[in-house]
Amino acid sequence: MITPVGEQMAREIAEQPPALSRLLHDTAQVREVARRIREARPRFVVLAARGTSDHAALYAKYLIEISLGLPVGLASPSTLTVYGARPHLNDVLWVAVSQSGGSPDLVRSTETARACGALTVAVTNAPDSPLAAAAELGVDVLAGPERAVAATKTYTSQLLALWLLVDHWRGGDGRTAAGLPDHVGSALDTPGIDGLASRLRFAPSLICTARGYSYPTAREAALKLMETSYVAAQAFSGADLLHGPLALVDADRPVLAVVGPGDGGRAMAPTLERLAAQRAELTVIGDPAGVPDVHTVVPLPADIPEELSPIVEIVPLQRLAHRLAVTRQHDPDAPRGLAKVTSTI
Amino acid sequence: MITPVGEQMAREIAEQPPALSRLLHDTAQVREVARRIREARPRFVVLAARGTSDHAALYAKYLIEISLGLPVGLASPSTLTVYGARPHLNDVLWVAVSQSGGSPDLVRSTETARACGALTVAVTNAPDSPLAAAAELGVDVLAGPERAVAATKTYTSQLLALWLLVDHWRGGDGRTAAGLPDHVGSALDTPGIDGLASRLRFAPSLICTARGYSYPTAREAALKLMETSYVAAQAFSGADLLHGPLALVDADRPVLAVVGPGDGGRAMAPTLERLAAQRAELTVIGDPAGVPDVHTVVPLPADIPEELSPIVEIVPLQRLAHRLAVTRQHDPDAPRGLAKVTSTI
Repeated sequence: MITPVGEQMAREIAEQPPALSRLLHDTAQVREVARRIREARPRFVVLAARGTSDHAALYAKYLIEISLGLPVGLASPSTLTVYGARPHLNDVLWVAVSQSGGSPDLVRSTETARACGALTVAVTNAPDSPLAAAAELGVDVLAGPERAVAATKTYTSQLLALWLLVDHWRGGDGRTAAGLPDHVGSALDTPGIDGLASRLRFAPSLICTARGYSYPTAREAALKLMETSYVAAQAFSGADLLHGPLALVDADRPVLAVVGPGDGGRAMAPTLERLAAQRAELTVIGDPAGVPDVHTVVPLPADIPEELSPIVEIVPLQRLAHRLAVTRQHDPDAPRGLAKVTSTI
Repeated sequence: MITPVGEQMAREIAEQPPALSRLLHDTAQVREVARRIREARPRFVVLAARGTSDHAALYAKYLIEISLGLPVGLASPSTLTVYGARPHLNDVLWVAVSQSGGSPDLVRSTETARACGALTVAVTNAPDSPLAAAAELGVDVLAGPERAVAATKTYTSQLLALWLLVDHWRGGDGRTAAGLPDHVGSALDTPGIDGLASRLRFAPSLICTARGYSYPTAREAALKLMETSYVAAQAFSGADLLHGPLALVDADRPVLAVVGPGDGGRAMAPTLERLAAQRAELTVIGDPAGVPDVHTVVPLPADIPEELSPIVEIVPLQRLAHRLAVTRQHDPDAPRGLAKVTSTI
């Protein structure tokens, strides 16, 4: 349902199936970048990003570590910009991820990484951006113009572009993802989001949690909820949550748990048991089978490979962020204090 | 002031100067591990940790990237435990940081990293722990028994052990840190903590922020506040804060900004300006010079090198977490839902 307030964000959420289809049908650029990476035989990978794009980078970290067996670090851009480090980056693949390609710290750190010997790739929605110019290779995520401040379709397009890049790098042909636009289309119609937003209307804070491939989903969901609804949404991996933040949880601190298919979802079992013991009001996005004391279930389309599930499971959470903002009488298209392109040094 | 409730935590906070002195006077083990690392000439570093120890690992990431010029990644242990990845780790230094040395995921991922070719080091407060046994090399942080669930003295001892390790690795002699116990002693007496805890008595959430070396301080302060006072404390780097979470901030969302000495503190200027524009109620830990509209200042001892500042600047924030918990009638020694040793898979 499109409302006058938040119309852009709602429209861009709905545009995700065709955006993903574009990327699936125009893989020449991704194949070529993957070929160059294979030739370079990198031994380490560094991913550089901020905000929503940092969650896409975190997804790529899991994907590369698990399926290519390379150690991956997330860059702290300030080490190169604020502190002027000049690291040894031979055999390093540096991947900068940014919707706008415009933040000065990403541009400068990518220039430095290239000068220090890394093979540099910019994954952006802006092939004419300074970041794309700074990197040796580029992938355009082809999401089309995004106007709402809260990024939605550029996020899922970044995830798919990174998956396609890794899949071609490891010798795949990308076809496993053919059903994604339909799955995302289904996720646009998941029932229950309005009711969940109504339930959370007066919650001052909440916790998002997941493990493995779905952990970036928890992080991105929390950011969307912060940006649009001004709720103090905190994200923790299902393991990190038990190392301290669990103390926050009682019946008055709602928890959104993404329980995806496969190993990551199964590894959530001890976390979900501990949350039940703390009397958490638990919403499960995904499969509630075997989870004790679930209050709300947001089902996901069935039969999605675990690697690709993050591209689908964020969609109901984007819709929740939009709906909760509107319910709280905020305009999700224009969060206070933010502009579409953020410049940091 | 030691109170009956939270007595252990208060005592352990106060024990930090002698704990740090022990480590400064017993550097043979650190020198030997540094020698072995230099011989191995690692090209990439992976740090593995959870909870408070993860913040010590983040500190080491900045230190190694900036002063040794090596790319560093923070491990996602689940890639090795839940997903069974067997990465290529030749030329990789793997440093696992843990107070107890007992969490199964850290033990198993360190065993796997060692089997996959990494040089493995365990930095623990428990030299007889499974983690210390799993790693090839070990550093005992010598903090002595820690009984409060919220880690304090083991954190600063981890930071100093990691700094000493890096300093000897890069050819230093560790003497720059000689004044640390005195500086930490001064930070134990910083005035104003009781008043700040009183001010925050009814704040449901708050934001901690900093950049560079002080960013781990913001993360650790938020975790302490969550664990002991059940406040939804969120930490963001001063750059990441501007990429979305800034929307959270208004006059009713207190912000604690660590503005340390040197480049990291100076790089906070744009963030502090934007916070003032959002009418944030701002507390500065450190130097408020040039910061607009500061409500509360928690000064730090002067003349501490930026690299070492995190070991001092966390101390007033530990005291704040303790005091706020007591003010809220929680027992900071026994947070709900937590035990001293956390086991995750």
